[in-house]
Amino acid sequence: MAKIVVLGAGMMGTALCTPIADAGHDVRLVGTMLDTAWVEAMKRDRIHPKVGVPLPDAVRVYDLTELDAALQGVSMVGVGVSSSGVRWAAEVLGSRILPEIPVIAVTKGLEQGEAGELRVLPDVFREALPEAKRGMQPCAIAGPCIAGELARRVPTAVVFTGRDRAALEQFATAFSTPYYHIRVSTDVVAVEVCAALKNAYAMAVGIGAGVHERMGGRASPVAHHNYEAAVFAQACIEMGQLLRMLGENTDHVAHLAGAGDMLVTTSGGRSSRLGRWLGLGYSFEQAREKMKGETLESAELVRVLGSALAGLVARGKLKEGSLPLMAHLFEVIVGGKTVDMPFHLFFRS
Amino acid sequence: MAKIVVLGAGMMGTALCTPIADAGHDVRLVGTMLDTAWVEAMKRDRIHPKVGVPLPDAVRVYDLTELDAALQGVSMVGVGVSSSGVRWAAEVLGSRILPEIPVIAVTKGLEQGEAGELRVLPDVFREALPEAKRGMQPCAIAGPCIAGELARRVPTAVVFTGRDRAALEQFATAFSTPYYHIRVSTDVVAVEVCAALKNAYAMAVGIGAGVHERMGGRASPVAHHNYEAAVFAQACIEMGQLLRMLGENTDHVAHLAGAGDMLVTTSGGRSSRLGRWLGLGYSFEQAREKMKGETLESAELVRVLGSALAGLVARGKLKEGSLPLMAHLFEVIVGGKTVDMPFHLFFRS
Repeated sequence: MAKIVVLGAGMMGTALCTPIADAGHDVRLVGTMLDTAWVEAMKRDRIHPKVGVPLPDAVRVYDLTELDAALQGVSMVGVGVSSSGVRWAAEVLGSRILPEIPVIAVTKGLEQGEAGELRVLPDVFREALPEAKRGMQPCAIAGPCIAGELARRVPTAVVFTGRDRAALEQFATAFSTPYYHIRVSTDVVAVEVCAALKNAYAMAVGIGAGVHERMGGRASPVAHHNYEAAVFAQACIEMGQLLRMLGENTDHVAHLAGAGDMLVTTSGGRSSRLGRWLGLGYSFEQAREKMKGETLESAELVRVLGSALAGLVARGKLKEGSLPLMAHLFEVIVGGKTVDMPFHLFFRS
Repeated sequence: MAKIVVLGAGMMGTALCTPIADAGHDVRLVGTMLDTAWVEAMKRDRIHPKVGVPLPDAVRVYDLTELDAALQGVSMVGVGVSSSGVRWAAEVLGSRILPEIPVIAVTKGLEQGEAGELRVLPDVFREALPEAKRGMQPCAIAGPCIAGELARRVPTAVVFTGRDRAALEQFATAFSTPYYHIRVSTDVVAVEVCAALKNAYAMAVGIGAGVHERMGGRASPVAHHNYEAAVFAQACIEMGQLLRMLGENTDHVAHLAGAGDMLVTTSGGRSSRLGRWLGLGYSFEQAREKMKGETLESAELVRVLGSALAGLVARGKLKEGSLPLMAHLFEVIVGGKTVDMPFHLFFRS
């Protein structure tokens, strides 16, 4: 039995506590300053209001002021903050834990560096650590995982990725349960690029439902599923193009972090809903208005990757006309265009 | 404007007439002996009862006794029969058309040859042709295409495949419309293996909905989507393993014929419904009883591929334990077991 802290009491951080507790550990779930209401509710009712199922008994809930107490004797740390909270988490944890304590984050995202290069979140996390802790190699979790399902112990399969295989194996051994299936991969860039892209591409698949509705259709086995599947296939092709360009292992596209996670992301959630609004013919500005107050990672990702595309073509890394679906999403999200899916440019790889 | 015959007036054969007619051709849709009622209905009402939208004006409907008249002056032939009708179609057409008339089939399937080898339907078709016509290289259509959507002109993207690139290009040029997007590929084995496997694997994905229901769940964004996505990813991995073993291009897995078609097949239809019954805990015998009268291509495919697996392992072509999802489906469909998804064996590639 190990003592394991999870920092971040959003849905995913909270859900992650269930397999860890079921695997026999002492789990300490610490809310951030954004989680105060949820921490209060869980301290009172033992249920996260958005997750909706009781916490296992082995999970103790802390607020941020109790972080130091929670970290007493800890041997592994999970991070469940949003992508905008990664630097904060690195600073908060970096000044408090020993460098040999492994860290794993559920956060997904991609940033553009100053030279236009794409950076995955474990690297962003590491660079935000205090100088003395830069030797740490944070791990990350990718693959299809709806938080509410994991908390309900629905069979779930994920990939733990990072550069430190020993840390990955340690987490995989510690967190595995009969319903939480873990593969490890040191292909951190390939896995994290898939994990990030799938939000943007799931949004693109969601456009089909909006187009169908705009044309007067109802949800049905005969809808715009051909459209959705064509976009899904093109998304897989573009993930592969990008990984090839980066010199990374393209096998992850047709695996948990790519197609698997993209599938689950099309089954509901913010990315699909944004896609639906765009498919209905709304501009991104109008769609954002409809979804006021929600974090739109998919749009943010399109902004990052779409801006990087032009530079990659200019530097000869990608052929002109590569990733035509992403390029169109960029026109929509950043350029103010309405959706007009360029199928005639697709399927060229 | 060319004269084009489509033999087989099922849903897919009939739907295929829509883009061909919209592309400006004279289309002659000929029913088989199984399509008599539909031909009658279409002659009377100009609507296929199962497709539900009017035929384009340029489509003329014939019954099988009028085949010779329909074939007068024809320059291309489409085949819309089921996999069990492929040999029949080859004989009927082979004795009537010139060898230079290209033929393309919508049929998907896989057979096991006498030496245990897997055979794709274009090859089965060719070998069933009369001796003098064996030089023909039948083409095939793969990729995500729900017939009722194609007939409604929903944007659809497919792959035309075969060994004769000129014939493929001729079909692609003739059948393309602003909503029917065609890519050609001479990787006929890779494309057809994906096209066939996706039925079996979509059935496997459908098991998730049944398991969810059995546990008292309702259709919802929180259901067994993690389970479904994990199975979907494993299906992609196994398609890749099989193509690698065959020495074929694995790119098709994360493309229209693989992931794309599998996605559309999970959105409804017989394969998903069979999966649901199995997920509910029924044996295959019981599930078949529930679906009496329906053709279960997915089960047939599992039977063919599952029996081939043991031989492939024995001959050293596949490693012991390869394709664990297909092996479990075989235990369920042929061995009478109930479903118990072996997630612990998955994701090893």
